[in-house]
Amino acid sequence: MIDDVRLARAYLLRVAEPPAPEVVSLVADLGPVRAAELVRAGKAAIDETAARRHLDFATKDLEQAAIRQARLVIPEDGEWPGWQLLALANAAARDVPGLTEPLGLWVRGEARLDELVDEAVAVVGARAATSYGEQVAAEIAYDLAQRSVTVVSGAAYGIDGSAHRGALRAGGATIAVLACGVDVAYPVGHTDLLVRIIGQGAVVSEYPPGTRPAKHRFLVRNRLIAALAGGTVVVEAGRRSGSRNTAATTSALGRPLMAVPGPVTSAMSVGCHDLLRTAGATAVCSAEHVMADAGRIGVDATTRSDEPARSTDGLDRVMLRVHEELPSRGGLSAERIAVGSGVPLSRVRALLPELELLGLVQKCEAGWCRGTG
Amino acid sequence: MIDDVRLARAYLLRVAEPPAPEVVSLVADLGPVRAAELVRAGKAAIDETAARRHLDFATKDLEQAAIRQARLVIPEDGEWPGWQLLALANAAARDVPGLTEPLGLWVRGEARLDELVDEAVAVVGARAATSYGEQVAAEIAYDLAQRSVTVVSGAAYGIDGSAHRGALRAGGATIAVLACGVDVAYPVGHTDLLVRIIGQGAVVSEYPPGTRPAKHRFLVRNRLIAALAGGTVVVEAGRRSGSRNTAATTSALGRPLMAVPGPVTSAMSVGCHDLLRTAGATAVCSAEHVMADAGRIGVDATTRSDEPARSTDGLDRVMLRVHEELPSRGGLSAERIAVGSGVPLSRVRALLPELELLGLVQKCEAGWCRGTG
Repeated sequence: MIDDVRLARAYLLRVAEPPAPEVVSLVADLGPVRAAELVRAGKAAIDETAARRHLDFATKDLEQAAIRQARLVIPEDGEWPGWQLLALANAAARDVPGLTEPLGLWVRGEARLDELVDEAVAVVGARAATSYGEQVAAEIAYDLAQRSVTVVSGAAYGIDGSAHRGALRAGGATIAVLACGVDVAYPVGHTDLLVRIIGQGAVVSEYPPGTRPAKHRFLVRNRLIAALAGGTVVVEAGRRSGSRNTAATTSALGRPLMAVPGPVTSAMSVGCHDLLRTAGATAVCSAEHVMADAGRIGVDATTRSDEPARSTDGLDRVMLRVHEELPSRGGLSAERIAVGSGVPLSRVRALLPELELLGLVQKCEAGWCRGTG
Repeated sequence: MIDDVRLARAYLLRVAEPPAPEVVSLVADLGPVRAAELVRAGKAAIDETAARRHLDFATKDLEQAAIRQARLVIPEDGEWPGWQLLALANAAARDVPGLTEPLGLWVRGEARLDELVDEAVAVVGARAATSYGEQVAAEIAYDLAQRSVTVVSGAAYGIDGSAHRGALRAGGATIAVLACGVDVAYPVGHTDLLVRIIGQGAVVSEYPPGTRPAKHRFLVRNRLIAALAGGTVVVEAGRRSGSRNTAATTSALGRPLMAVPGPVTSAMSVGCHDLLRTAGATAVCSAEHVMADAGRIGVDATTRSDEPARSTDGLDRVMLRVHEELPSRGGLSAERIAVGSGVPLSRVRALLPELELLGLVQKCEAGWCRGTG
């Protein structure tokens, strides 16, 4: 069963170019296996899959991945970072274009993905960084890693590379989210760096093994950097830097956006200062500042789960349906909740952990029951 | 009459070390002439004046000032910047310690003080500035001056000096507010700069001619820099810079506070970044940014005076008393309003221009009447 699901998701990741909103929505409604059948038969999400639906490489992709010490992590897995990625589903539900949840994530690296991103901050910025920016990125990443915070970035030259290196130097964990297959060394000059990242953290991508990077994929990839991290720090950015895109996504997801100030005479700080002036970014000069500003999410979540009384105020319609399906006494399996509520099983499985964090549900012998508050 | 008032204020400025809240309050209640009589007789504000009340140098100070092409500008003068300084009276009324209105201002420079500060921005910062900070201060001041904005600063080495010089280079106006007499060249290395400032703007101080600078006077002086300007830009500041004091006053007065970002590796930018993080300062990189952020005051005032309907909502108790004293038809002199409302004449004279800007009163043949809206 799990293998069918994994095969279905591997197939869909191969034939649907992310963010593929129609396919993602189809999977949410019908589950991955049925969605894959319809796509394969040319009966659904035609626009997004017509060009590739004949590429039934799922088995081959999974085998190929295994050879490269890569695995496909899917929402049905325990290590799926559901809480972090849920923000994308919510954003997509609010009609933010392009911010879909990934159908799965190809991962290289031994650590569990959910544990890696439990406390994580994205440190991103310009490729054409100055030595000032690279120095600051490395120092902030080093200090974050020393505080057991995982540094998420994009493995690019400049700020990204410095951030990964800073975390590695501290012996900490770091995640590189790629716009190509996890087996593709890009940029070539970072081949060794990527190997070290795999050794101390993870290289992650929604693109199947062998996929080459393409300009549009960097923008699509950026939403995963923003979503996997509890907040984003932009260290240096020119006026039209790609980091502006990651910054915008961070704000769209309701996560703290931070920018490092720099000389106003530096073209590489123009983007950061613009984020401070117009995007509500906070100015951060050190890991201490980052912890203070990005810590808000973690702190809020903790505070919330300490509160005795729970409220379903603020839940969206689908979450309410899941919650209301639970009886006032006793529990239900996720499958029973899915049948009863009419919400697709995969969606139920993604939502239950969030409801748990809100204290509205908890695990029990039967599966899930209402939170005791 | 005006001479008596001017002599009384000159006397009080000599015997009461600013901010002298008791003396200021006495003057607000009884007027400067009566207040000076009581102080001279040792019957009021004893603590603030006991050490100097025998120093009856008012005539000598005014004569001495005239020789140095200086004059004493007092609230009873048409060029008194009442609207700007009113913020201090309001702050003092809200019990912000030390933020008193000055009893008068010694001025060197030919332009009218009220016209000079009509559109003005304070550009201040560290004495131990870096070449980066000095360059940015000079450029922002130059560009502000080119846009006919008066640059207000403190004539100190470092950022202050660069700000004055930038404005002068653009052929614009600049005001130096001193912590010593307007005839005292301090710092000595800025002797020529002060002469040039007098030629293109004004040197201003509440300290009588001949007063030497003292450490505490810089802090007291800072409130005048903040009050005379429509907003304050801090260009560089160390962790414990005096500019932090000017910044705090700016915020206490409800004026826009701005800070210039710099390298996070520079000790001279620590204060600016702290203002961005903790004091609600906005990040400004250019005169354009400053105009956008500081412009709010001017823009708001203009918008308000264009509106047809006026409201007394938001007036404080004393302003309401002044406004309500005006009959629905016909006008009254300021003296009649003072007697009728029980609000001291000097206070009435300070408040009427503000009520006028709000469109709630207007000048008429009899003196003042209600605004027609």
